[in-house]
Amino acid sequence: MKILVVGAAGMIGRKLCERLARDGALAGKPIEAAHFVDIVPPSPPAFAAFPISCEAFDVAAPYVAPKLIADRPDVVYLLASVVSGEAESDFDKGYAINLDGARLLFEAIRSEHRLSGGLYRPRLVFTSSIAVFGAPFPETIRDDFFTTPLTSYGTQKAVTELLLADYSRRGFFDGVGLRLPTICVRPGPPNRAASGFFSGIIREPLAGREATLPVADTVRHWHASPRSAIGFLLHAAELDLAELGARRNLTMPGVSVTVGEQIEALRAVAGEAAVKLIRRQRDETIERIVAGWPSRFDASRATRLGFVAETSFAEIIRVYREDDDVGPVA
Amino acid sequence: MKILVVGAAGMIGRKLCERLARDGALAGKPIEAAHFVDIVPPSPPAFAAFPISCEAFDVAAPYVAPKLIADRPDVVYLLASVVSGEAESDFDKGYAINLDGARLLFEAIRSEHRLSGGLYRPRLVFTSSIAVFGAPFPETIRDDFFTTPLTSYGTQKAVTELLLADYSRRGFFDGVGLRLPTICVRPGPPNRAASGFFSGIIREPLAGREATLPVADTVRHWHASPRSAIGFLLHAAELDLAELGARRNLTMPGVSVTVGEQIEALRAVAGEAAVKLIRRQRDETIERIVAGWPSRFDASRATRLGFVAETSFAEIIRVYREDDDVGPVA
Repeated sequence: MKILVVGAAGMIGRKLCERLARDGALAGKPIEAAHFVDIVPPSPPAFAAFPISCEAFDVAAPYVAPKLIADRPDVVYLLASVVSGEAESDFDKGYAINLDGARLLFEAIRSEHRLSGGLYRPRLVFTSSIAVFGAPFPETIRDDFFTTPLTSYGTQKAVTELLLADYSRRGFFDGVGLRLPTICVRPGPPNRAASGFFSGIIREPLAGREATLPVADTVRHWHASPRSAIGFLLHAAELDLAELGARRNLTMPGVSVTVGEQIEALRAVAGEAAVKLIRRQRDETIERIVAGWPSRFDASRATRLGFVAETSFAEIIRVYREDDDVGPVA
Repeated sequence: MKILVVGAAGMIGRKLCERLARDGALAGKPIEAAHFVDIVPPSPPAFAAFPISCEAFDVAAPYVAPKLIADRPDVVYLLASVVSGEAESDFDKGYAINLDGARLLFEAIRSEHRLSGGLYRPRLVFTSSIAVFGAPFPETIRDDFFTTPLTSYGTQKAVTELLLADYSRRGFFDGVGLRLPTICVRPGPPNRAASGFFSGIIREPLAGREATLPVADTVRHWHASPRSAIGFLLHAAELDLAELGARRNLTMPGVSVTVGEQIEALRAVAGEAAVKLIRRQRDETIERIVAGWPSRFDASRATRLGFVAETSFAEIIRVYREDDDVGPVA
């Protein structure tokens, strides 16, 4: 089994690549080779029992996708994405990478599918987002609620979902789109996603640093840990997609909590001193973006298919401390 | 007021152009000039009080859209489309025209918007389709039902809807997408749309010719006349779109009937001799495509906004006889 990961240097990409290297297998089959790609060179995992090639490419450049697919990887992970804040501030870049990058990859697979006489038909796992949905919302969003995104990022994800479903229906690849919850607690430095503060208000105080909270405590949102996200990606590679029919895009399970409830969970594990490090400073741009985001889902379709996430925000913090927290800076 | 119609030589396009020429005004303002464009040269209407330029262009060619938008038309009608059957049999052509053609036009408008310092922001009216929806369906499809098309044509329309909404939200143009019912009774020769028989079984017998019915009498579908479609397009140019918010795509009203009910309506106006001209010959490809189509909608959102269609299939036949039927061939 050969694996291609596009977007391998991002937070989720790195964790996925490390996990693949550690497991040495995917969907019950040994991994023979892996190709990890991103706009910056991905770091190879410390150890792997199979050869790994790490390369830097811009997926928006038309020559790239045919090169990535020429080896006919059996599983393709498409994680590469310009984040929501940047896709909103740089319209061209967001469309070039999030939409055209995906389409170029899909077209390269279709071309190899044709060259192979229809034999090449890889599994394609795409990380979509709950940003495909836009307010006003019902209290709980079902899988059959319509996609009326309020950001260019959400639009690009929703378009890619449609393309993925059509290319799968036509038999060019066997695709599945995973609408990830906001990933929390993100390790490492803040990124440019408008959702960054959801992690910042936990991660920074746990490290003894100040964090800025740009929205009200009453804002409710949908979260899952990086560990759950990796679990979704691995499960998506082994799942029998025939059960999905033509509806290839799935809202992943998560935990629905308010910012206030996040802060209470932080207080329970790290005390009042940590909570005091959260500085409230409203930011109208972020408030406006976040107001268009959903807060609670019915993910029963994904749950029935075996996708599993945390069940409380306390659990999400515990996972962060086990997997990523380096402890307070002295 | 300057008007651009892209797709002016199609059935709906011709009727729209004739109506604009006859009215001499749109949205309460006199028309100063019109530009009618299609892949074949559109025929100019017999009389118009304003200058009309008719040209043949392929909207999939990147040089075309900037040329069409250079004059800064105040209202842009995007009707051009490869029909469902052809988009299914020719994957590349469908995507090139239905998706890339629309996007190139949207990008050309964005470019003029920027060149104008944000002053140029035309009304854009796009003809989408109920093919954005895919089975299985609830009995009645509401406007907030999700778009999981089962054809490449439906996918291309759904993607264009998403782009239209995002470009409108960003303020590049003021767009509205109209999900037309199947237009019935279509005048003229059959086209390559899989839905063609819905019109054929009425039009051909009224002209004394045989028609083929490739599906069962129990198939239920959603119809409106060409006259109603033109009414939707004119209304969409004058409507205050602020009421739509970010949700720019609307299911148009129509009439839900079975093929059997269509035939009964034909019998009522043209007698048993006409009905006898319908030859039943099942076609599995068409049956499969049509099985993925919806049959009944809740179009109350559009109705509240003032869009009006027929209320019975008898009325649809009456409109055809008034507007288009040339009578039995001797």
